[in-house]
Amino acid sequence: MQAIMKTKAEKGFEIKEIDEPQIINPTDVKFKIDAASICGTDHHMWIFDEWAQKRLPPAIPFVAGHEVTGTIVEIGSDVKNLKIGDKVSMECHEACGTCYQCRSDRMHICRNTKIFGVDKNGIFAEYAVIPELNAWKNDSDLDPSLGSLQDPLGNAVHTILPKDHIEDIAGKNVLITGCGPIGLMAIPVVKMLGASRVFATGGGNNLLRLEMAKKMGADFVYNTKTYGDRIPQMIREATEGNGVDVLLEMAGNIHALHQGLQALTYGGRVSLLGFFPGAIQFDINSLMISKGANIYGIAGRRMFQTWQVMRGLLRSKDLQNKLKQLITHRVNMADWEKGMIEIHEKRAIKVAMDPFN
Amino acid sequence: MQAIMKTKAEKGFEIKEIDEPQIINPTDVKFKIDAASICGTDHHMWIFDEWAQKRLPPAIPFVAGHEVTGTIVEIGSDVKNLKIGDKVSMECHEACGTCYQCRSDRMHICRNTKIFGVDKNGIFAEYAVIPELNAWKNDSDLDPSLGSLQDPLGNAVHTILPKDHIEDIAGKNVLITGCGPIGLMAIPVVKMLGASRVFATGGGNNLLRLEMAKKMGADFVYNTKTYGDRIPQMIREATEGNGVDVLLEMAGNIHALHQGLQALTYGGRVSLLGFFPGAIQFDINSLMISKGANIYGIAGRRMFQTWQVMRGLLRSKDLQNKLKQLITHRVNMADWEKGMIEIHEKRAIKVAMDPFN
Amino acid sequence: MQAIMKTKAEKGFEIKEIDEPQIINPTDVKFKIDAASICGTDHHMWIFDEWAQKRLPPAIPFVAGHEVTGTIVEIGSDVKNLKIGDKVSMECHEACGTCYQCRSDRMHICRNTKIFGVDKNGIFAEYAVIPELNAWKNDSDLDPSLGSLQDPLGNAVHTILPKDHIEDIAGKNVLITGCGPIGLMAIPVVKMLGASRVFATGGGNNLLRLEMAKKMGADFVYNTKTYGDRIPQMIREATEGNGVDVLLEMAGNIHALHQGLQALTYGGRVSLLGFFPGAIQFDINSLMISKGANIYGIAGRRMFQTWQVMRGLLRSKDLQNKLKQLITHRVNMADWEKGMIEIHEKRAIKVAMDPFN
Amino acid sequence: MQAIMKTKAEKGFEIKEIDEPQIINPTDVKFKIDAASICGTDHHMWIFDEWAQKRLPPAIPFVAGHEVTGTIVEIGSDVKNLKIGDKVSMECHEACGTCYQCRSDRMHICRNTKIFGVDKNGIFAEYAVIPELNAWKNDSDLDPSLGSLQDPLGNAVHTILPKDHIEDIAGKNVLITGCGPIGLMAIPVVKMLGASRVFATGGGNNLLRLEMAKKMGADFVYNTKTYGDRIPQMIREATEGNGVDVLLEMAGNIHALHQGLQALTYGGRVSLLGFFPGAIQFDINSLMISKGANIYGIAGRRMFQTWQVMRGLLRSKDLQNKLKQLITHRVNMADWEKGMIEIHEKRAIKVAMDPFN
Repeated sequence: MQAIMKTKAEKGFEIKEIDEPQIINPTDVKFKIDAASICGTDHHMWIFDEWAQKRLPPAIPFVAGHEVTGTIVEIGSDVKNLKIGDKVSMECHEACGTCYQCRSDRMHICRNTKIFGVDKNGIFAEYAVIPELNAWKNDSDLDPSLGSLQDPLGNAVHTILPKDHIEDIAGKNVLITGCGPIGLMAIPVVKMLGASRVFATGGGNNLLRLEMAKKMGADFVYNTKTYGDRIPQMIREATEGNGVDVLLEMAGNIHALHQGLQALTYGGRVSLLGFFPGAIQFDINSLMISKGANIYGIAGRRMFQTWQVMRGLLRSKDLQNKLKQLITHRVNMADWEKGMIEIHEKRAIKVAMDPFN
Repeated sequence: MQAIMKTKAEKGFEIKEIDEPQIINPTDVKFKIDAASICGTDHHMWIFDEWAQKRLPPAIPFVAGHEVTGTIVEIGSDVKNLKIGDKVSMECHEACGTCYQCRSDRMHICRNTKIFGVDKNGIFAEYAVIPELNAWKNDSDLDPSLGSLQDPLGNAVHTILPKDHIEDIAGKNVLITGCGPIGLMAIPVVKMLGASRVFATGGGNNLLRLEMAKKMGADFVYNTKTYGDRIPQMIREATEGNGVDVLLEMAGNIHALHQGLQALTYGGRVSLLGFFPGAIQFDINSLMISKGANIYGIAGRRMFQTWQVMRGLLRSKDLQNKLKQLITHRVNMADWEKGMIEIHEKRAIKVAMDPFN
Repeated sequence: MQAIMKTKAEKGFEIKEIDEPQIINPTDVKFKIDAASICGTDHHMWIFDEWAQKRLPPAIPFVAGHEVTGTIVEIGSDVKNLKIGDKVSMECHEACGTCYQCRSDRMHICRNTKIFGVDKNGIFAEYAVIPELNAWKNDSDLDPSLGSLQDPLGNAVHTILPKDHIEDIAGKNVLITGCGPIGLMAIPVVKMLGASRVFATGGGNNLLRLEMAKKMGADFVYNTKTYGDRIPQMIREATEGNGVDVLLEMAGNIHALHQGLQALTYGGRVSLLGFFPGAIQFDINSLMISKGANIYGIAGRRMFQTWQVMRGLLRSKDLQNKLKQLITHRVNMADWEKGMIEIHEKRAIKVAMDPFN
Repeated sequence: MQAIMKTKAEKGFEIKEIDEPQIINPTDVKFKIDAASICGTDHHMWIFDEWAQKRLPPAIPFVAGHEVTGTIVEIGSDVKNLKIGDKVSMECHEACGTCYQCRSDRMHICRNTKIFGVDKNGIFAEYAVIPELNAWKNDSDLDPSLGSLQDPLGNAVHTILPKDHIEDIAGKNVLITGCGPIGLMAIPVVKMLGASRVFATGGGNNLLRLEMAKKMGADFVYNTKTYGDRIPQMIREATEGNGVDVLLEMAGNIHALHQGLQALTYGGRVSLLGFFPGAIQFDINSLMISKGANIYGIAGRRMFQTWQVMRGLLRSKDLQNKLKQLITHRVNMADWEKGMIEIHEKRAIKVAMDPFN
């Protein structure tokens, strides 16, 4: 079969002809790829940045990609809840299942985790084999390209709902700092969950993203380049002086973090998803401690409560239509490089890939 | 001023001319009534049923009514966060503020609570005086008749979100047993909170309510008279065999409770709001214990987290339009009896009342 | 090897000589039994009551028993976090791992669960083979007989802490209705978790249990035969009129449930573990709904948060000493019938079994 | 009556003869002071540091002090749950009662709060008048000096249990960074709540505090001067490689924060109580975000869930004995300056004050 592979410890991917993967463990399933999409992580791997140089060499050569929808074509002898013909997407974190974290509902931060398409073969190919546990059964009528977006959508949903038991979004004011693909996806989701007013900030010259934030349903969109440190005061004025109840930090930018925490109401909650370029400096006394803030560090998506929430939300035609607008480009896997360049040039939000034909 | 009063320990209300109430405590506020609505409790008081015979005599004579919107016309010297001209609705439970429950975020089940319009003067009148704490400031542009509905809407929201920290509605399947006014209000609210599929059951010959359930947005509406004990199986079939994640019991009917608990998934959650005619009998082993169910008894509405959620939700035009459909009748306070009879004859869902003119 | 087996669909067990079990799946582990104990379920199976007649036939003949400590003697090729020589106890529920419940932190109520020693071979034998996931690594210096008690102790801990996110026991008043082995174990645990006052009720003529409740550290022990329906009032008087914050129902008795719910404070929480003889009748209006009670049905123990809590608690010498007092009898597996009779005659709390020699 | 007062905007307090305070609002209570203690805040006010220079002038002259136990001698006409002769301590935060925070169970971070003894008259005097809500009824037999410690003990308990719904301490490994009075109080409390292993770090030359940490029951006490950045590794080795489940940061020191977060297990929780000297710099990516940490900023103590927990815990003789050891000095109010100097010279943990005689 054909596959887009990381074959060398340097910039680039290349298409190779390799053997189809085979079921090995009795709990494995094999699926044919129906749709995929390109993640920011794929871009990091492609340009082979500092992170990639540290992480990838042990796995090279390997098949890239982890955002996918497929159709089950074969199942192992001990597979219990999937059958041939089922439509599935993939949770890309393969957890060990028996460590301290896995045994306490924190499988998404398993200490022995491996990621498909990063630490081992991924899904930019014709077929893939993964454990039943990592295969998530979609509604049979779900558009494959939307199914593929559940990886980043899951990051968004997990950021919004870090735990089962958490202050509800219903009727709350929410600020999303950062309008990358995940920040944009978060907007219609918090609206769906009954948020009262949704604020989004983002930045600088990338007006495509701010326009998209409006389309996604944000009530207020502020360009940080224009409004900068006036943003917290503007938010307080729009919220009877209270500030926002929930801050979803998706920028990985110290100014965004400052603005977000300043705009937060006393006792509000914060999810931190955006990665920062390095160590950051801020006044933790006033911004976190005396404010009584409740902060969640977010990694991955919950296995599999986040997916269960997504399944329900994705039944909404309105959400489907919003997400489709985020797919700004579509290419065949054979033309993956065109899509990658659109991402590199920041002209794309999400690039969907159709399977090799 | 004019007031609709319970003057005798027997069936009926009557309109009387009484003195305007005065501010006594420095924390009191006085408001002019802009809109009111009739609660099921008012109907119980009017027909003077067994409950009313036990509860009301100490307060007779008193002004009836507790669902209201008004405009602040005077404030006490120690009022801190309200001013003349503010639009308010009323939380009808006056809590003591310092008992065990009040000191631990359970003021809505204060052991020394008194209810305006039941244990002391209510608001079917021209003016009312209540503590600042019981006056809830509405958005200034909220339709007064919708503001008045926050009392039963608050019951619905509290039933849906019994605590801050609770499994989210997002993406979940929800069953509402009982389509009285509060059950009907719960339907658009759970849809707004991202419920996946909403089931509503109700009963018998009152087709108005079942039709209204459809209009409120329920995905599946089952007439219990037609489907009876087949309902749990029908629900399982519509939910990949899982059953519902959340049961909101609003019927106060043993068959509804049975059907609801049978339709509940293992480890699901249940809110019980509906009052039963008397003691009930059921198999607690299979329906609650081994099912790992999580059950909440619901009384009133949280003071004031439920109101904060409502404020946010009520900014939705879609919810406003749904709730307006539930106001099937509108009368002037002077014609209260016409409205009461519509309720008595079960031809009305909610009856709005305009102020005495 | 020797094994205590259920060989026929009738009363009784018998010792048989069978082949040692072998590792089949790569995730299996094999352990040598170091200690076991007899559960109430084993007694039900032995007398072959109504429940046993329904449940057991498909598995007969099979090895009985599920409360155990052992030493790992062999591991499968894909075992990740256990090694030969490790001391383990066993979680007796084998979950499917991929159903709706298993994928959302509710593996203990998996809809496809099988129980070792009930639905398939158990551990009243010399060796056993189970998946790594079901093997719980004990501290290496834990007394094997105490390790074996983690099955019922886990029921107690799960009843006390049904979820991660739940009102704390710290400083709370707690009532335990029912002083069987699990109720008795719950007493020292709630004391360890900072309970203020612990009430225990139990009954009738079995004074051994009430004496043991005192030894376990209950502050107040009431004989239900003596005090009956006066108990709620006695509890309120001992708690400044508030009643208890937490009710742990472990009796499976309608009178106990009534007394417990009457003694509960408004907004208190309840765990239901005890199974009732059949359907029950009670006033759900006053006892659950208007009381704002929060009720948890309890099944099994959480996989594996309950075990993680137990590991920590069992490091307390004081708790170890309390639990040792509950082991009122000790026999060799070859003499299992002596132990079973002590249980049948209600002379024993827990019967420990040493391995076949 | 006599009172220790801040009379000038400069270093120092002085004893003055002033009128007894009078009940003004119908919800006020008046109490005679039975015991007091000196808080670190009192020391800041005495030396008149930068914080004090900003905060205090509007209130000068005023009576200092807020850690207290007293006896009710008079009650207002609308006091509902206290009577003359009741023993009380004082919650020093006077909340407005009707702001956004107060109306949602966050009264301890009310935006309009005033603190007795900081923003208005406190309790280093013979009598004080406060609202019923701020008066906390103690068990009648509680030692007055222990009752007075509930202010800092409340900080400790709130840090340990920031919310009702939070991962339990039971069976968990806990690290307390910082062994000032509140850190030291936290040690016996987490032990009482069933912590498995308790680590405490502190520092430098103040060996008194580290010795006291051992006496309070810490399993491991590390001098940061000796072990420094090796501490996280030492903690992992003592916890099967997992690290701690709970970090209570009470040092307000960047090294302590680093060490604490490095020692935290994936998905662990953190409470931040210690105030830092200024803005801090750290790697939020690895220490909070990808670790999936859950962080709580802590201010004050919950009103009044924290007090309810304390009431229950303080019934333990063992906790009482531990806390008594922390009272290293005792003076009469007339000799307040001796006590203050012991604190200034860091020779004291807590200084108890007997009432003016």
